[in-house]
Amino acid sequence: MTPQELIAGFGTLDGELRVGGVPLSRLAARVGSTPFFAYDRVRLDARVDLLREMLPARVELSYAMKANPMPAVVQHLATRVDRIDVASTGEMHHALDTRIRPDRVSFAGPGKTPAEIRQAVAAGILVEVESTTELKRVIAAGDELGIAPQVAVRVNPDFAVKGSGMRMGGGPQQFGIDAEQVPAVLAEFASSVDILGFHVFAGSQNLNAEIIAEAQRKTVDLITDLAAHLPGALRYLNLGGGFGIPYSEKDRPLDLATVAAHLGELVDGPIASRFPDASPVIELGRFIVGECGVYVTRVVDRKVSRGKTYLVVDGGMHHQLAASGNFGQAIRRNYPVVVGNRAAEADGDSVTVVGCLCTPLDLLGDDIALPPADIDDLIVIFQQGAYGLTASPTAFLGHPAPAEVLV
Amino acid sequence: MTPQELIAGFGTLDGELRVGGVPLSRLAARVGSTPFFAYDRVRLDARVDLLREMLPARVELSYAMKANPMPAVVQHLATRVDRIDVASTGEMHHALDTRIRPDRVSFAGPGKTPAEIRQAVAAGILVEVESTTELKRVIAAGDELGIAPQVAVRVNPDFAVKGSGMRMGGGPQQFGIDAEQVPAVLAEFASSVDILGFHVFAGSQNLNAEIIAEAQRKTVDLITDLAAHLPGALRYLNLGGGFGIPYSEKDRPLDLATVAAHLGELVDGPIASRFPDASPVIELGRFIVGECGVYVTRVVDRKVSRGKTYLVVDGGMHHQLAASGNFGQAIRRNYPVVVGNRAAEADGDSVTVVGCLCTPLDLLGDDIALPPADIDDLIVIFQQGAYGLTASPTAFLGHPAPAEVLV
Repeated sequence: MTPQELIAGFGTLDGELRVGGVPLSRLAARVGSTPFFAYDRVRLDARVDLLREMLPARVELSYAMKANPMPAVVQHLATRVDRIDVASTGEMHHALDTRIRPDRVSFAGPGKTPAEIRQAVAAGILVEVESTTELKRVIAAGDELGIAPQVAVRVNPDFAVKGSGMRMGGGPQQFGIDAEQVPAVLAEFASSVDILGFHVFAGSQNLNAEIIAEAQRKTVDLITDLAAHLPGALRYLNLGGGFGIPYSEKDRPLDLATVAAHLGELVDGPIASRFPDASPVIELGRFIVGECGVYVTRVVDRKVSRGKTYLVVDGGMHHQLAASGNFGQAIRRNYPVVVGNRAAEADGDSVTVVGCLCTPLDLLGDDIALPPADIDDLIVIFQQGAYGLTASPTAFLGHPAPAEVLV
Repeated sequence: MTPQELIAGFGTLDGELRVGGVPLSRLAARVGSTPFFAYDRVRLDARVDLLREMLPARVELSYAMKANPMPAVVQHLATRVDRIDVASTGEMHHALDTRIRPDRVSFAGPGKTPAEIRQAVAAGILVEVESTTELKRVIAAGDELGIAPQVAVRVNPDFAVKGSGMRMGGGPQQFGIDAEQVPAVLAEFASSVDILGFHVFAGSQNLNAEIIAEAQRKTVDLITDLAAHLPGALRYLNLGGGFGIPYSEKDRPLDLATVAAHLGELVDGPIASRFPDASPVIELGRFIVGECGVYVTRVVDRKVSRGKTYLVVDGGMHHQLAASGNFGQAIRRNYPVVVGNRAAEADGDSVTVVGCLCTPLDLLGDDIALPPADIDDLIVIFQQGAYGLTASPTAFLGHPAPAEVLV
């Protein structure tokens, strides 16, 4: 998507980008300091509404809070989604603070310790086990606490998903139990604990609707095979998510209508006939929050070095690891950057936007066209609602933590 | 360096790695939780002693605390080095808490705000300006506070240093004032503020002694040219640092004797004759602390997926961004990893060590030979004294912060 398309998504007033309806310079004054992250509540609601409108009614929407664990965001989304997925007991505590019922909180991720599993079982949340070791720990915690644990098996599928930003299924993986091992695991443990169902998650940040649809079809087939080995009915059917958002200008948004159409066929067909007791779960983080957030930082210095113009801002890679190109990318590509208080002005000469860290890694926009900007202008990086602040090394070089606001 | 060489550096007792003389399992019991970072005080002292012994006596040693800002480490090193370099006012506060005099604390880094410069001038620390804008801010803060500021100019040299992990000089840069612009800047501002001298820093993490020596020679020549434009004598001569440490097995340690020999010629020759009022400063972070620290994490799960064996540990990339390959590396290479409580055992089959984060980025050791390890064994990553904890996204996925101990 282009910066202009992204600006239009938030809207402008008197030439300034608006977030949550508030012009950016006013928002900066309200926050009182730069840099900061701002999340737009109206856009957040619109995103959930869009998913509700397009996805089959029987689909349950789970928010993967690892994408953005800001408590206000989690609390707000808890009033709009059906489930929350957590990746740690730290996240679990925040999820339990919301109105979502504990049995609608799922806990996934490798390497869960006995202590963490004990906490999860005591809380009554759904533990998605990633190995036989974890399953044994769940059973032990249930026995010790006198609680029937909520448990499902995360499955490492026997197929891979192409085109994902990160592949998390197929071949050897640290995630889940290999599909072909699952029948033996169920045969051994299903008499000791009530296993509700399965979670298959094959990859994240995918922008290709057909590939997502194909993965969902294969997932339903795989779970059909595995469910035959359960002693009771399948009651948990987590199809994963992996819906991507566009970061670079070349990226096109995911065709949600196509994903929804294919999913509708699955829901009305095999899922309805085979799994009458399970609502399919779609688990999304980045797709819900990613496009609703911006990172706002102020120009502190403008300098020309050997013909190249630099805008030095008061933020940087300590809040923007992914935008700096240091979070899982093989090749750095610019994230969309604009001058938020000059959103209606024409681009001038190219500039390079760097952060305030004393390292050449701290690069936010390399040789990009922007309206002429100088000290005190507000530089905005889009698509920062997910994997922004918490996925960055905030303590690096000892700068203050940025504010986060839900507007 | 090989894992065996690294183990020998710390020493063992009854087959266990020792840190600060304490066997690892006992240290883990003392800390009370894993994962943790442990820094060895004896090795820290030995490193400073080595530098003192080999470098010319007139050289002042500055500790770049961005490498490891743990307060206990900074306090300890403050009793052993001559200067501390800070990269933010946050770091400045910690440096001022030590016995180092304020005028021996330097503050470098692009994008210093007027408020930060005002704090630094009020503290009486040495501000290394990275642009004309910053120089004007220093003068303004001095005028406002009625204080004569301590100030030096950081220079972007007209040469580049090959073989650095990160190039930070030569060509266009956000760092420093271009060498060819410095005479004009001095002509304009040297009557308004007393400029003590210059800092030239050309690159970091360099393992080639000849290249470092060549950069130091060129730096002295460059500063000689620039010093002619100062109205008074040169009193600050910061030659940078950039001494690297070995991370992968193929890396060989820096030949410090060669660096020292060349530096000795510079100190006894041009520096003594041209700059009688300045002691050359060598600024080191990683080289002082990097090899003194280890990261210790416990195996939580061992699983085999489609023929590949995984050790899942309770730490991960949220504390080990560089080891996971996501901090400035174009190609991921394994950091040195051992089983700390089985330091004397022979290697078994290859395993892959992954962290507890729910992302395939969380890879700590890819297909490495280790002694057979299982749940509760202690996995150690070496060379973790610098750019470890603070250079990692600690809040990612909401796991607890690791402990840090100086033993």
